[in-house]
Amino acid sequence: MAVRSVKTETARPLLALEQLHAQLQAVGEERYHHKHPFHLLMHEGKLTGGQLQAWALNRYYYQSIIPIKDSIILSRGPDSVFRRAWRKRVVDHDGDATSEGGIKRWIKLAEATGLDPGQVLAGQGILPATRFAVNEYLNIVRSRSLLEAVASSLTELFSTRLITLRVEKLRQHYRWLSGGLDYFEARLYQAPEDSQFALNYVYDHAKTRAEQELAIQALRDKCDILWAQLDALYFAYVEPGWPPPGAFRIEGR
Amino acid sequence: MAVRSVKTETARPLLALEQLHAQLQAVGEERYHHKHPFHLLMHEGKLTGGQLQAWALNRYYYQSIIPIKDSIILSRGPDSVFRRAWRKRVVDHDGDATSEGGIKRWIKLAEATGLDPGQVLAGQGILPATRFAVNEYLNIVRSRSLLEAVASSLTELFSTRLITLRVEKLRQHYRWLSGGLDYFEARLYQAPEDSQFALNYVYDHAKTRAEQELAIQALRDKCDILWAQLDALYFAYVEPGWPPPGAFRIEGR
Repeated sequence: MAVRSVKTETARPLLALEQLHAQLQAVGEERYHHKHPFHLLMHEGKLTGGQLQAWALNRYYYQSIIPIKDSIILSRGPDSVFRRAWRKRVVDHDGDATSEGGIKRWIKLAEATGLDPGQVLAGQGILPATRFAVNEYLNIVRSRSLLEAVASSLTELFSTRLITLRVEKLRQHYRWLSGGLDYFEARLYQAPEDSQFALNYVYDHAKTRAEQELAIQALRDKCDILWAQLDALYFAYVEPGWPPPGAFRIEGR
Repeated sequence: MAVRSVKTETARPLLALEQLHAQLQAVGEERYHHKHPFHLLMHEGKLTGGQLQAWALNRYYYQSIIPIKDSIILSRGPDSVFRRAWRKRVVDHDGDATSEGGIKRWIKLAEATGLDPGQVLAGQGILPATRFAVNEYLNIVRSRSLLEAVASSLTELFSTRLITLRVEKLRQHYRWLSGGLDYFEARLYQAPEDSQFALNYVYDHAKTRAEQELAIQALRDKCDILWAQLDALYFAYVEPGWPPPGAFRIEGR
């Protein structure tokens, strides 16, 4: 049900890999959530503890579906080589005998903000808009081509820089959160390998200009999913500060 | 992927129909979008022409998927009696030889706000948050029980009062829109019949307390879908007034 303005591109020439790479980077520059006002407040240390709780609670819903969306992609993988590479992502988030995994690490971050982990796990009080945006990620990896499903993960091309900055700023402004930052530390070495595999997959499998445009659009749509989550947080908890009926309320407000 | 707090209700007694009805009404009172600040501004005549354009453009996406969601329910209908009753909804929105249908009427409303109908049809510039919320409606009618899919339509129990007020207020404050209100006029006689059928279906098919609670939750979730659309409009076009990258911009801003 995505409304897309992508037109048939048969008349336009295939992009060289450097051009395709440049266009993917340009999508990130324009739409990735590193520029979102909610993140800017966070990095300036201007979010209250309650606002950080709202962020950690809502973002947990996103974290919790990542291994589900990766399992859907896994189920669509064409061969063992692809599936072995992609399986790493499920392990990274769900953990194994030697590692607790990203979901557990996010719970620890949420606890460090003062939330009850039971509430976080149950998703109690998350914004409906968070659910809608995140569920759209599942819609995309289920209903579009595998190429587009893979391309939608390419926000990882931009995440290392943002996470590096965020960890520095959270340590600086919110020292009491320092014990909860394992999630981000792990992503700093996990994401680059993942994004390189996905990028190579897109390079190899977008064989027409139309397919290249679909891959670029999938990345744009994924950026919109991240951006919309922060819009909803900002609206509910910063300005005008109106959480919808039934959503988490910041204590003392 | 809905996070729900509904617990197993086997220990609790079945609600009498009047109690069930009262609970459904209470959901509407708490969560239906008649109380949303964006609607309050509209009814006070405080929305600008550009803000009304943003509303008509985004709401068109909702209108455009209604016959799709009703076709999904149609495809799940158990028998001809159900499908004949439900088919009316698809006709109401897509039209037939004698009636242009609700989608066409909404386009006329959008045109009355000054939008180009081609842009509206293409969904150009609609907010990603609109798409995500509306697509969730499709997720619900596809993935939950038929009982829940039907129950999610019960916002129609509350729409007549809201539409009656809206038509009066739009005529009063935005006289230049008067030629575009056919959509609402038609809904005033279409919706009550539809909601009566759906309500009777829920009465007949929610045979356990757990099923009754699922039906109530589906209505709650549907209210959240409507509410989230107005939150996104308010955030992008009223306060703080930050449309996300690529979205419709109000002229002169």
